Amino acid sequence: MKLLRYGETGNEKPGLLDPHGDLRDLSGVIGDIAGDVLSDAGLDRLRGLDPHDLPRVEGSPRLGACVGDIGKFCCIGLNYSDHAAETGAAIPDHPILFMKANSAIVGPNDKVMMPRGSTRTDWEVELGVVIGKTCKYVDRAQALDHVAGYCVVNDVSERHFQSGLTGQWTKGKSCDTFGPTGPWLVTRDEVPDPQALAMYLDVNGKRMQTGSTSTMIFSVAAIIEHLSHLFTLHPGDVISTGTPPGVGLGMKPEPVYLRSGDVMELGIAGLGHQRQEVGQDT
Amino acid sequence: MKLLRYGETGNEKPGLLDPHGDLRDLSGVIGDIAGDVLSDAGLDRLRGLDPHDLPRVEGSPRLGACVGDIGKFCCIGLNYSDHAAETGAAIPDHPILFMKANSAIVGPNDKVMMPRGSTRTDWEVELGVVIGKTCKYVDRAQALDHVAGYCVVNDVSERHFQSGLTGQWTKGKSCDTFGPTGPWLVTRDEVPDPQALAMYLDVNGKRMQTGSTSTMIFSVAAIIEHLSHLFTLHPGDVISTGTPPGVGLGMKPEPVYLRSGDVMELGIAGLGHQRQEVGQDT
Repeated sequence: MKLLRYGETGNEKPGLLDPHGDLRDLSGVIGDIAGDVLSDAGLDRLRGLDPHDLPRVEGSPRLGACVGDIGKFCCIGLNYSDHAAETGAAIPDHPILFMKANSAIVGPNDKVMMPRGSTRTDWEVELGVVIGKTCKYVDRAQALDHVAGYCVVNDVSERHFQSGLTGQWTKGKSCDTFGPTGPWLVTRDEVPDPQALAMYLDVNGKRMQTGSTSTMIFSVAAIIEHLSHLFTLHPGDVISTGTPPGVGLGMKPEPVYLRSGDVMELGIAGLGHQRQEVGQDT
Repeated sequence: MKLLRYGETGNEKPGLLDPHGDLRDLSGVIGDIAGDVLSDAGLDRLRGLDPHDLPRVEGSPRLGACVGDIGKFCCIGLNYSDHAAETGAAIPDHPILFMKANSAIVGPNDKVMMPRGSTRTDWEVELGVVIGKTCKYVDRAQALDHVAGYCVVNDVSERHFQSGLTGQWTKGKSCDTFGPTGPWLVTRDEVPDPQALAMYLDVNGKRMQTGSTSTMIFSVAAIIEHLSHLFTLHPGDVISTGTPPGVGLGMKPEPVYLRSGDVMELGIAGLGHQRQEVGQDT
């Protein structure tokens, strides 16, 4: 299934994409794509519905983030061997973790606003993992059983805020609008191998990132194992798993950053696409 | 006013402490100590009530964190000049920011559980600031107008997770139960100068931390100014503003860390006290 949330910011309704690509309203069935809805039982209940019995949503409404009421937004840094090489960083011994503030989360096609004074805002296409079942101290062999599904995340990053303001990275990752998430949550039964997904990101139509989740240093399962030994992962938590090569920071001969008016387009095989225009706070 | 939340974990009711120190139930008036309730208008409404008209709560119920539905839990590191000296760290140029996962937040007297494998769990008494009004790009002169009130926070920290697991600090700050918050939210009208508050923390009855918010490197107002230039602060966001000297990491001749069975007691002048027994996950 492809689950989504549509409507105005803060008033999104739950929906799904039917086999014809039409949007169907789930608000008569569930309150939100959140919490218990993300459990195996909750998803099975939705699978039991005939999409054609659900009201069809006309037009092209705005999409919100594909998960509501996100508890914590965990992000893994430097998790692709080819991206680590590009930034000149050493391969980490454990997954590098930072949190993105929940207030940064927006829909997949919402405008990305660079904060005042920003001159180094950068892009990062990432595989998002949506937790469906509470997990703590889980082994990697069982880790993926706790996943509701996957989605596209753009881990937008202000590089000066990230590393030039006396730390920590969360400073450059948590600006408002820096967490486009969606378009939809693809349930894990439709993603047989999360370590074999092609991904891309274009800026103004030019391909900047080309990668595959196959070059992750720490697999999705290994990340869940590691995080679950630090704290409990709850349904509706999201883990963004790092970015492949091609970010602005790594460009040669010198870094390239976003400017107001730029357009980012990105996607992951089977998980859909995002498109954001870039603006700047005045 | 002293606002609080009482009852079982996850089902706390709002309440207040009356002038006699008795607990009064606010659940007939508001849903939670959260969101709009924290605005000037929301707090004025509560001030207009006669506490004696509210149901008195009998017994000594568990207290939850004094704020519900916390959006983001921002923590400032190395913010006391005397604590920076104790850890041998340089005085930072800007407030150091990390996020504590919301899933770590517990009541002021709940048990603190060290995670499996932890051998370096440490204490940090801190002044918590509860945002009452949305703010972005605010100057420090106006910053405190956006505060609903203040509370005690124990920023419990696993030092190996914090700095020995390839970063970032959030790893050692986000373990379950590592965010005791309360006992109550003291509204800002009762805290005329947040930079003149004595604070302490005892372990097993022995004084470990003695400090004052007067030695903060970045004042509450300066922190709000800085953070609001990174992202929007929303009602119900909490900022924990750093700890004074006397943490286990800074002990001489060698660090001292918590052990299962230890008891932490801590408080800040006018903001109440916390008491936590320490356990360890097996």
